[in-house]
Amino acid sequence: MAVLAAVVRELGSEPVVEEFADPAPEMGAADVVAAALNPVDLAVVNGQIPFRRLTPPFVAGLEGVARLQDGGHRYFFAPEPPFGSFAESVPLAGAEMSAAVPAGLDPDVAAALGVSGLAAHLSLTATGGLVGGEDVLILGADGQVGRVAVQLARALGAGRVIGVVRDDGSRRVPLALGADAAVSSTDVDGLAERLQAEAPDGVDLILDLVWGPVVGPSLAVARRNARVVQIGNSGGPDATLNAPSFRNRGVRFLPHSNFLFTAADRAAAFEELAARAAQGEVEVEVERVPLTGAAEAHRRLVAGAAKRKLVLTTTSGTD
Amino acid sequence: MAVLAAVVRELGSEPVVEEFADPAPEMGAADVVAAALNPVDLAVVNGQIPFRRLTPPFVAGLEGVARLQDGGHRYFFAPEPPFGSFAESVPLAGAEMSAAVPAGLDPDVAAALGVSGLAAHLSLTATGGLVGGEDVLILGADGQVGRVAVQLARALGAGRVIGVVRDDGSRRVPLALGADAAVSSTDVDGLAERLQAEAPDGVDLILDLVWGPVVGPSLAVARRNARVVQIGNSGGPDATLNAPSFRNRGVRFLPHSNFLFTAADRAAAFEELAARAAQGEVEVEVERVPLTGAAEAHRRLVAGAAKRKLVLTTTSGTD
Repeated sequence: MAVLAAVVRELGSEPVVEEFADPAPEMGAADVVAAALNPVDLAVVNGQIPFRRLTPPFVAGLEGVARLQDGGHRYFFAPEPPFGSFAESVPLAGAEMSAAVPAGLDPDVAAALGVSGLAAHLSLTATGGLVGGEDVLILGADGQVGRVAVQLARALGAGRVIGVVRDDGSRRVPLALGADAAVSSTDVDGLAERLQAEAPDGVDLILDLVWGPVVGPSLAVARRNARVVQIGNSGGPDATLNAPSFRNRGVRFLPHSNFLFTAADRAAAFEELAARAAQGEVEVEVERVPLTGAAEAHRRLVAGAAKRKLVLTTTSGTD
Repeated sequence: MAVLAAVVRELGSEPVVEEFADPAPEMGAADVVAAALNPVDLAVVNGQIPFRRLTPPFVAGLEGVARLQDGGHRYFFAPEPPFGSFAESVPLAGAEMSAAVPAGLDPDVAAALGVSGLAAHLSLTATGGLVGGEDVLILGADGQVGRVAVQLARALGAGRVIGVVRDDGSRRVPLALGADAAVSSTDVDGLAERLQAEAPDGVDLILDLVWGPVVGPSLAVARRNARVVQIGNSGGPDATLNAPSFRNRGVRFLPHSNFLFTAADRAAAFEELAARAAQGEVEVEVERVPLTGAAEAHRRLVAGAAKRKLVLTTTSGTD
């Protein structure tokens, strides 16, 4: 038997939707309902991810949601190679991690909450140690992780929530999700001053998805003993930091990667996040693309052209 | 009554040794035996330290050791203004912190162990959380704090201890104090490679007294979940850091300043450190200068011309 799948035939080349081997039933084969696209998928296709260096041909896609025989759904991450989530069927048995999807949650949204939702949830809670009432600054609040983080910070009882976004036009994104203020980072030279105007008493926690030229000026509002959680570097891999500006106020830099956490910890965090999403505390706007459009969706991810979270859907999900 | 003291008559000007008011007996006046010079003293004279912005005239000097009436000695820090440690007498009652000096320890050495010894001790233990068997890299191992840190790391049961020093000629400094290896930072471009040769399996803890161009290449030997304790920036206030290089390995940056700790915590750390020094586990080479030479000692500190720890001594200490 064969199923449709987005297959990588050569490292670095765009996945092609074609027939691929069907995973055997004894591997826990299940129908894929939805699969989310993430920047990490591009790196896997390019052979740049140490924990997933695959030999072609293999199926693209790290995360998705499959339908179980009882009609329920299960989120899965990193199925056993050569299988991947951009396919009609996946073997659940060998997945690196999987977690329950609550009955009330749209499986497409559940798929979209995986990698980026976990980054928001774990960085706020486990890495950042957010305590109710603390003020939070989110650098990159208009991105996929940032959008979830704004809502979660609110749901977790943060005090003031301030988002830094790439331009004035993006300020509405965190504001619509519950942020108290949004500041553009276009003019980096004036950023510290604009942040001080919005947070005259400073903030306790900075979630940094940007780094580059944005993180330095943002330290101007780090309160004594504040934490900066370093999650991503959409603004560039290098930043120049002034040591006295953070040292004398006791500001810590805490690295965050989902993969510093065990599969069990990630599964528990996913289930907590999914429960909040089922209750409407966290929303993710998804753009559904049929699996047959995987190559074009991949191209849009490369170009950074998607405003909403791209989710590949199969006919399995449409019944 | 009046005593000799190194008096600052104008902010930014060199202290002048002259007669100054004697602290009253009801302020716990005690004879000063020894007073250490530290870079922070220069900043106090320049009015740059928020916790000690004084109005001239005032006596220079933050730390010293005084003799008690029972013949014992007490370390003190930040006596009540306008008094300071560069004087024949000091009021112990209003000092911000004070701690016992063990009977077996030379009071001049006790004075020299204060600010810089505490930075080494607290950064290794309270901030850095050193656990026995862990490998430690000390950036700035030829400076005053670094020298104490090399010995303390050894005494606290560290595994491999590696020092980074300013030039090849300074390599002997940490080596003589018990370091397993010493690497010069003169050629910054080759630093990462030289460190990898000395620590092929990486290190768990980096004490950073240098920052500037040295800290970035040093991250090459940071093991997964390593900690970088940021204590000083003798290499310059700014450093360019590559986010993926530390984030994906879970490397934390922990700021250290003695003044992030309470007076009680610092006093306890001083007493532990002094006990180790009394047992010969930690040695500090001091250069004794009579109080009357305070202005010249101040000038040498400005010029960075002292190889050993400068300690001002009074005739009270010579009986």
